[in-house]
Formats: sequence, structure tokens, C-alpha cells
Amino acid sequence: MNYIENLNWRYATKRMNGSKIDVSKRERILEAIKLAPTSLGMQPFDIFVIEDTATKELLSPLCFNQPQVKESDFVLVFANWTANFAEKMELYIQNIMETRGVSSESLDGFKKSIEGFVLSKSKEEQTAWASDQAYIALGFALMAAALEHVDATPMEGFNRQAVSEFMGLPQMGMEAGVLMAVGHRDEANDYLVKAPKVRRKHEDIIRTFVK
Amino acid sequence: MNYIENLNWRYATKRMNGSKIDVSKRERILEAIKLAPTSLGMQPFDIFVIEDTATKELLSPLCFNQPQVKESDFVLVFANWTANFAEKMELYIQNIMETRGVSSESLDGFKKSIEGFVLSKSKEEQTAWASDQAYIALGFALMAAALEHVDATPMEGFNRQAVSEFMGLPQMGMEAGVLMAVGHRDEANDYLVKAPKVRRKHEDIIRTFVK
Repeated sequence: MNYIENLNWRYATKRMNGSKIDVSKRERILEAIKLAPTSLGMQPFDIFVIEDTATKELLSPLCFNQPQVKESDFVLVFANWTANFAEKMELYIQNIMETRGVSSESLDGFKKSIEGFVLSKSKEEQTAWASDQAYIALGFALMAAALEHVDATPMEGFNRQAVSEFMGLPQMGMEAGVLMAVGHRDEANDYLVKAPKVRRKHEDIIRTFVK
Repeated sequence: MNYIENLNWRYATKRMNGSKIDVSKRERILEAIKLAPTSLGMQPFDIFVIEDTATKELLSPLCFNQPQVKESDFVLVFANWTANFAEKMELYIQNIMETRGVSSESLDGFKKSIEGFVLSKSKEEQTAWASDQAYIALGFALMAAALEHVDATPMEGFNRQAVSEFMGLPQMGMEAGVLMAVGHRDEANDYLVKAPKVRRKHEDIIRTFVK
């Protein structure tokens, strides 16, 4: 499978041409996010799709007016959980019971693992942990987009508090974690289109460890 | 491209059969990690490949004796940077100059962005930021493995300090962030092989946002 070519084709697209992507491609990218593994299977984030033109206009200044926000087909907001972990765990346990047809009792040990690993963390640790999991899903989304020959830009450059408040996330026990703009590159206006990809040399980043 | 099937095929493999994976598949999985995008392109982590049997034996108890450590072909350690960010930035700027044939002066603005965004963070924030980036690469690695029909297990269940010290990471300005065991599933002994995947419903995790 020649996905390495797709990964070389992709780049952090700063200028997009405003065109829509195929609905089926979009559905598969979202499905990839849903299928991404997370610690303990908790999926401690919600995904918001911002496609509406007026909403993107309002979002743009909160992202330092980076042009890909308005020029994208849509922007994904990975909203990390910051609260209600105990309730969320109960919903998750319920989901496992229904999906796998197992009893509540059979999950007691697993529930204790979650309590020991997640609920015992400090608020800061929980937030960092939720963020890590969202970044796995971000990785899946970026790679899925590349496989679809759709452009995508991961974005940390935005005002986290302003975006969170704009979307009413704190009231939902969430905060804006990372954004991803999805669309098609504007080849004529994006100077990065032809810039060679900069990566550390294989032997600098990847090494064998033997004790 | 039918990668969604591959993503449904993959699961967090707890029992592996000890067999080797094709070298070409392994190289592509590592290449996917190298090609993963990171904030500002910094790639703030190193990857260690642990394939040596004796080393895996020693690693196992530091991972609560989870069987996939010893039963895998190899374990990847994503080692996040915890120090030397200013030096690393200089190396990165040098790399951009060489790869793109641009002058140091032309990168002054970009350098200031890195200084403003990364070097100004607290140590805890830097560590969380580096971890986030490593999780994008983890996402790429997990998805690449699925595309190769190779099994892979992301692992947060290990003694971070013990693994870091075992590998001498603190002296290198790094800490063990997340692990990934790679190999082939042991269908006979892994009860999870046939367990339906548990995920939140599409409409629970993904919603449209309009202001």
C-alpha cells in the first residue's frame, strides 16, 4: 500500500481554495477519528465540525486570522474533556455492556482500573491525558485526509480560551484542544506547496536501544 | 481507498505470537512516524526501537508484565524532549536552511515564533506540548501498522520513571512518553480478538457547531 506517497504529498496547508470536499471523503475522515484508539478506550473528547460560513468568519480572528480557517471546507475542533470524568466513565461502562453483551460485574476490575488511572489524576493531569488522546485521533484524521487526497492543517495557533468561550465549551465540561482545517490547497497562493518537507534524518530521530 | 476496513481490523493487541514482521513494513511504519506533522515542525521526541530479546525481558516488569512486550517483534518508545529546547531549535533552523536552501535571516520571524510559543512555556507546558506531538506520530504509526496488516498496541500502562531511567533518558533530556508494541496477534490466546469494538455513537462524539 503506497500510503507513504500520500504522507509526502500532504503538508500543513496555509492557503485553501474554498472548495468543498466530497461528502463520502469527509464521512471517512470522521469515521477514522471515531475508530482511533484511546487510553482505556475512553475517547475523552468531542469533535465539532464548523462548516457554516458565518461561524468560520467569527472563528477566524480567534485564530489570529490564519486564512485557512475561512478558506477551508470545514474546521474540526477537538474539544477535550475537562470535567465529569466519573459520569463519562459510567456511560462508557454502559456502552461496553451493550456492545459486548457483558454484565456490569464482569467490568468491575476494568472500572477500578479507570478509577485508579483517570479519576485519581489531578485536573491538570486529566487535561493533559485527554489532550494526548485527542492527538492520536488528530493523527488518524490527518492521515485519513492524506489517504483521501484532501488537504488538512493541524492548528495550535489560536486563542484557546476565546475559542472555548465562543463555543460554550466550559459549560459542557470541555475546552478547545486542537483544530484541524480541511479543504483543498490553493496551489497558486500557498508558497509552502513546493517547499521541500523538513524532517530530522532517519538516524537522528529513530534509534535502536539495547541494554 | 478502503482504510476504514483496516481500522476496524486493528485492535489493542494484548497477546502476540512472537513472530517477526516484514522489514519493509517496519521501515514504512517508522517512515510514517518521521513524516507525521508536529507543531512548528519541531518533532520534539526521539523514537527508540527495542527489538533485542534480553532488553524486552528487562523492560517487561517495568510495564506491569503486560505480555505483548515480550511477545512483540519490537517495542517503540516515544521519548519526549524535556530539556535543551533552545539548542534543538538551532539544529532545526539549520535543517530548514539546508533542506530549503534559505538564509538564516529569512527564518528570523519563524525563530521568533518558536521562541514565543515553545521556549516561553513552563517546563510542564513544554512537556505536555512535546507529548501531544508524539501522540500525533503515535497515531500515524498505529494507522500505518493497520494499513500494513500488522498489529500494534499503544501503551500508557508502564512505570514512566522506571522506563526513563532504565533507558538513560533523563541524561539525554528526555522522558518515556508512550510505548507501542508491534507484532502479530495470537488469535488463540487473545480474548479481545473477537470482541466487538466499543466506540461512542457517531452523533455522540461528532456534532456540527453553528454560532
